Amino acid sequence: MELHNKSEVVVHAPGTVANLVCGFDVLGLCLHEPYDIMRVRLLDEAKIIITSVDGYQLPTDPKQNTAGAPLIEMLIEIGGTKGFEVIIEKRIKPGSGIGSSAASAAGAVVAANHLLGNIFSKEDMVRFAMFGEKVASGVKHADNVAPCIYGGVTLIRSIHPLDIITIPTPDLYVTVVHPQIEVRTSDARQILRKEVLLKDAIKQWGNIGGLVAGFIKNDVELIGRSLEDVIIEPVRSMLIPGFDEVKKRCKQAGALGGGISGSGPSIFMLSTTEHTAKQVEAIMIEIYSNMNLAHHTYVTTINKTGVTIQP
Amino acid sequence: MELHNKSEVVVHAPGTVANLVCGFDVLGLCLHEPYDIMRVRLLDEAKIIITSVDGYQLPTDPKQNTAGAPLIEMLIEIGGTKGFEVIIEKRIKPGSGIGSSAASAAGAVVAANHLLGNIFSKEDMVRFAMFGEKVASGVKHADNVAPCIYGGVTLIRSIHPLDIITIPTPDLYVTVVHPQIEVRTSDARQILRKEVLLKDAIKQWGNIGGLVAGFIKNDVELIGRSLEDVIIEPVRSMLIPGFDEVKKRCKQAGALGGGISGSGPSIFMLSTTEHTAKQVEAIMIEIYSNMNLAHHTYVTTINKTGVTIQP
Repeated sequence: MELHNKSEVVVHAPGTVANLVCGFDVLGLCLHEPYDIMRVRLLDEAKIIITSVDGYQLPTDPKQNTAGAPLIEMLIEIGGTKGFEVIIEKRIKPGSGIGSSAASAAGAVVAANHLLGNIFSKEDMVRFAMFGEKVASGVKHADNVAPCIYGGVTLIRSIHPLDIITIPTPDLYVTVVHPQIEVRTSDARQILRKEVLLKDAIKQWGNIGGLVAGFIKNDVELIGRSLEDVIIEPVRSMLIPGFDEVKKRCKQAGALGGGISGSGPSIFMLSTTEHTAKQVEAIMIEIYSNMNLAHHTYVTTINKTGVTIQP
Repeated sequence: MELHNKSEVVVHAPGTVANLVCGFDVLGLCLHEPYDIMRVRLLDEAKIIITSVDGYQLPTDPKQNTAGAPLIEMLIEIGGTKGFEVIIEKRIKPGSGIGSSAASAAGAVVAANHLLGNIFSKEDMVRFAMFGEKVASGVKHADNVAPCIYGGVTLIRSIHPLDIITIPTPDLYVTVVHPQIEVRTSDARQILRKEVLLKDAIKQWGNIGGLVAGFIKNDVELIGRSLEDVIIEPVRSMLIPGFDEVKKRCKQAGALGGGISGSGPSIFMLSTTEHTAKQVEAIMIEIYSNMNLAHHTYVTTINKTGVTIQP
């Protein structure tokens, strides 16, 4: 992909980890890898063209496409006769639980906003990108698109009205394994109980307070102790073969902790050193190889920038 | 009260606000006023003598007294033949919801530890002081004794094992009104439902994350937006006449927000200036005067020291 002129831009739209352990529906984290590559071109007529140059057979009707739906909303808001052509090279596997749909949505709006002269704020862009999530999962959630656009760790304090808080973090390593089984977001949501015990909710809010404090105060031991989820993980982890063993052995190897990425099936672990992060990767590979389950792994770091415009 | 020699010490043991809005059972805050005055003397025999010089008729049997029970545990731990005489001038009204029992417990252990040559850590002292809370309410909770001993805002991330996190805060003013009705802690706990809706729990953890981030990042607007409790306050506030009007009018007058202190009936409000904090006090006085309900008010600040040894 080469950039031809100022009416075109190429962006890298990274993967994200939502539902950060105790932070179900509120905390998310941006990764450096994997990322989608998207080329977006400004058109002089009010239309949106989506082309994919990967093998994923995602819908190219803009209304059905997670990159297209946010751009439709953006064009409605600016009015006029502009349009966009989007060419998507998706590298984040759909259904992996590391924000594939969010990357398309966030990448499209950041690129489009750049071509329009940066007229929208990051919060505006999250608002648009959430329409992509609605296409993907039926729900306008922000816990992947917010970290994808803001970078780092974000807290969705409130969704109505939208209130996104950036949480400064230490430079941590993230190891991700994607065991190639299908966990549909809608299924993962359906198995959750609508009510939770107050005593469990209290444990959870102790851990959320601890995790946020640990990130901001750069206290990695506190981060480790707070990476505990007594509500969602005990239910959802049953859908992911090998989950308990991965978690236990990765922590024994020195990982601070981790859990299900998004609604799964990917699992992520945080570490303070690259050495530990790679040992964690080796453990993940060993466990899924022994189970004869196809898998991808990534050793990466927290991406504090989010979607990046390529020079 | 005069200090006679090195085997005696006088401490000020301040009031505290537990259940800090969204932080039910996990977040608490230390006040400068009101405070109890306690004189503690080291004895050369293994006994505990409690005397009160106030009008509250609290039990003076050490096992039944919130200052005595923690000292019994402390003596068991150190063994030997030391004892303590404690003279309590209680100024924090029992049952007010601003940590009266915690002040006695925390004041006693901080004074005793000082007389013993500071052999215990703050966490140890919280552990002892929790025995006083058990005497007072039947439950060994730390959400008042922790801020009373550590000062500032504390997060009880976990109670088993005890994990206390100090949360740095901006210099905020605190206005407290104590409408003189009786709300028993046990009653206030009994009316809570044992289960909460997952969607409410999610709102609550967004707010806890926001409140902790707001405190540490010194973002007073974020603190204000996060001072929201969708689970406990809607139930418990029904026990406190005038609650909704106090909250609404204090926020209109510029308070960041606030809520029930502990399990009530006191109500607290946070403000960024003394001027606003005093306007808030005037509103509280007006509302309860109009209701012909006896009340005390305090305009104070966050106490970042906790129990203090007097020179």
